[in-house]
Amino acid sequence: MPAIDVAGEFETIRRLFAPLAHPEWGRGLLDDVAVVPSKPGFDLVLTKDTIVEGVHFLPTDPLDTVAQKLLRVNLSDLAAKGAEAFGYLLSCGWSERCGWPEREAFAQGLARDQKAFGVALLGGDTVVTPGPATFSLTLMGWTPKGRAVSRGGAQPGDLVFVTGHIGDGWLGLEAVQDKTSLDMERVAALVEHYRRPVPCTDFLLPVRDMATASIDVSDGLIADLGHLASASRVAVDIDLELTPLSGAAQAWFEGRVDPQAALEKLVTGGDDYEIAFTANPRDEPALRREADRRHLRLTCLGRVTAGKGVTARFGGEPVAFETSGFTHG
Amino acid sequence: MPAIDVAGEFETIRRLFAPLAHPEWGRGLLDDVAVVPSKPGFDLVLTKDTIVEGVHFLPTDPLDTVAQKLLRVNLSDLAAKGAEAFGYLLSCGWSERCGWPEREAFAQGLARDQKAFGVALLGGDTVVTPGPATFSLTLMGWTPKGRAVSRGGAQPGDLVFVTGHIGDGWLGLEAVQDKTSLDMERVAALVEHYRRPVPCTDFLLPVRDMATASIDVSDGLIADLGHLASASRVAVDIDLELTPLSGAAQAWFEGRVDPQAALEKLVTGGDDYEIAFTANPRDEPALRREADRRHLRLTCLGRVTAGKGVTARFGGEPVAFETSGFTHG
Repeated sequence: MPAIDVAGEFETIRRLFAPLAHPEWGRGLLDDVAVVPSKPGFDLVLTKDTIVEGVHFLPTDPLDTVAQKLLRVNLSDLAAKGAEAFGYLLSCGWSERCGWPEREAFAQGLARDQKAFGVALLGGDTVVTPGPATFSLTLMGWTPKGRAVSRGGAQPGDLVFVTGHIGDGWLGLEAVQDKTSLDMERVAALVEHYRRPVPCTDFLLPVRDMATASIDVSDGLIADLGHLASASRVAVDIDLELTPLSGAAQAWFEGRVDPQAALEKLVTGGDDYEIAFTANPRDEPALRREADRRHLRLTCLGRVTAGKGVTARFGGEPVAFETSGFTHG
Repeated sequence: MPAIDVAGEFETIRRLFAPLAHPEWGRGLLDDVAVVPSKPGFDLVLTKDTIVEGVHFLPTDPLDTVAQKLLRVNLSDLAAKGAEAFGYLLSCGWSERCGWPEREAFAQGLARDQKAFGVALLGGDTVVTPGPATFSLTLMGWTPKGRAVSRGGAQPGDLVFVTGHIGDGWLGLEAVQDKTSLDMERVAALVEHYRRPVPCTDFLLPVRDMATASIDVSDGLIADLGHLASASRVAVDIDLELTPLSGAAQAWFEGRVDPQAALEKLVTGGDDYEIAFTANPRDEPALRREADRRHLRLTCLGRVTAGKGVTARFGGEPVAFETSGFTHG
């Protein structure tokens, strides 16, 4: 019953992945395990995400960007927790379209991002699948002991912040499916965001130091704030008109006849990979300084109150959402 | 583009997986991450394996046994390194056949094995896939600092051991495909081994204390001893006629006209999930005592010598293998 792998499991590991191995802990990918020494005074923070062709990426997406997206969506999870990533385990389920050139592209994408984000490969496995290509990644990072930011610490009175821009995730998916009528440069920026989102690792230290609760925006801003509110047993009240838009999103938004409906799309679309977090108002000046130092946009969207759920307002009035967010199946 | 999950990602996690969560470190599966405190003086040992329907398990296999097999093949990897597993991250790629009853069966299988093997769920994700069901598991364990057994420490003069029985993995695959003519009881035992192999976690402490090199037998005894020999830069010389056979394998073996060819099948078939290891001859009495105490079969197959590769003998003569082992593609 074993499926035949034309490229070979061992040869794939030796040629493509061994050069990516962590120099000390990956055992050259020649063992079944990775061995990571304890880091006393630190906690190990772990996350695991899987992406499937046709569900989380398109069959036409180049495999170097698929690899980068896989790594980056996991980096985004750790960044929102204030954890610094150091390594990952990878499972590749190669489909029929994954010959040597595609696998090489995949490894090249990883090599670029390993360098950019300071992580290295620790282990994993490769299999072939008769179905769509499927990749799973377990990312590991450290925080000082007890300092991983949870979803559950928001307090009434806290402010609600989000890094960067919201909506490029949803618009990127539209763009990659040729569903937008923007100019070529805007479309290219959105496609780039869809294929290679930029996790907000730059801001993880301020988040660790000052956020009372935090989550990365992957399901959609409203849905993810809902997760945070629920875990913190509080309500979140935000103003939709404050939603920070990129240049491309702003251009798209200005072409809409119904601005409220347009904003609703952007805040429920997901795949933004920004950090949504809450913080005590006394920390706002320090958060703004940290954001400015990094040339990073930081937007206060509203406030935490007693109660439950997310209230998003447009023109001061609460908006009812049909769907609370993108569900990755 | 998101695939619709009839059962729902959040509902699946809440109903089926939250009860399996590690009480302290899994955050109730309500966060994107797990947080594991450092254990000073210990190393963290990690492994990750993926299984695909139609490749690593059969579409007719019950999903509770699929879940157990997934956990057990990873437990086998850690046991061979002398590492005690404590937790795992899981990615489920549900296919169309995975409705609530199948998912419940999957979670029940995990629940049983969590209890049997002392591990708990730390996190992960669930997605749906238009292809075959695909599951990936990252297993974590501890060894005292520097004590994870590698593949690379075998020395000329060491003895070569294997736990339990060899060949039930290959025979189990034959049995599950109705390709054996054994009696029903034997077939049932082999099918059970195929679906629910028993990792040799019982023997991990003696392996940690006395093995100079170790590997779990998943690719096939010959192939895995080849990996060990290669990593240790030594040769391994074994006697095929010493291969330990289960009752079912012995019954099958006795029906063969060519005993050498039959043994070759069994030692290259893979999926045995026993531990093959090397040890200094002075430790043999202690290893035997530890095996006896556990009612565990322990077989000395041969010896480590200077040189390279695996020499397997039958009737004293070296046997040439066409294939060095099962490749999981």
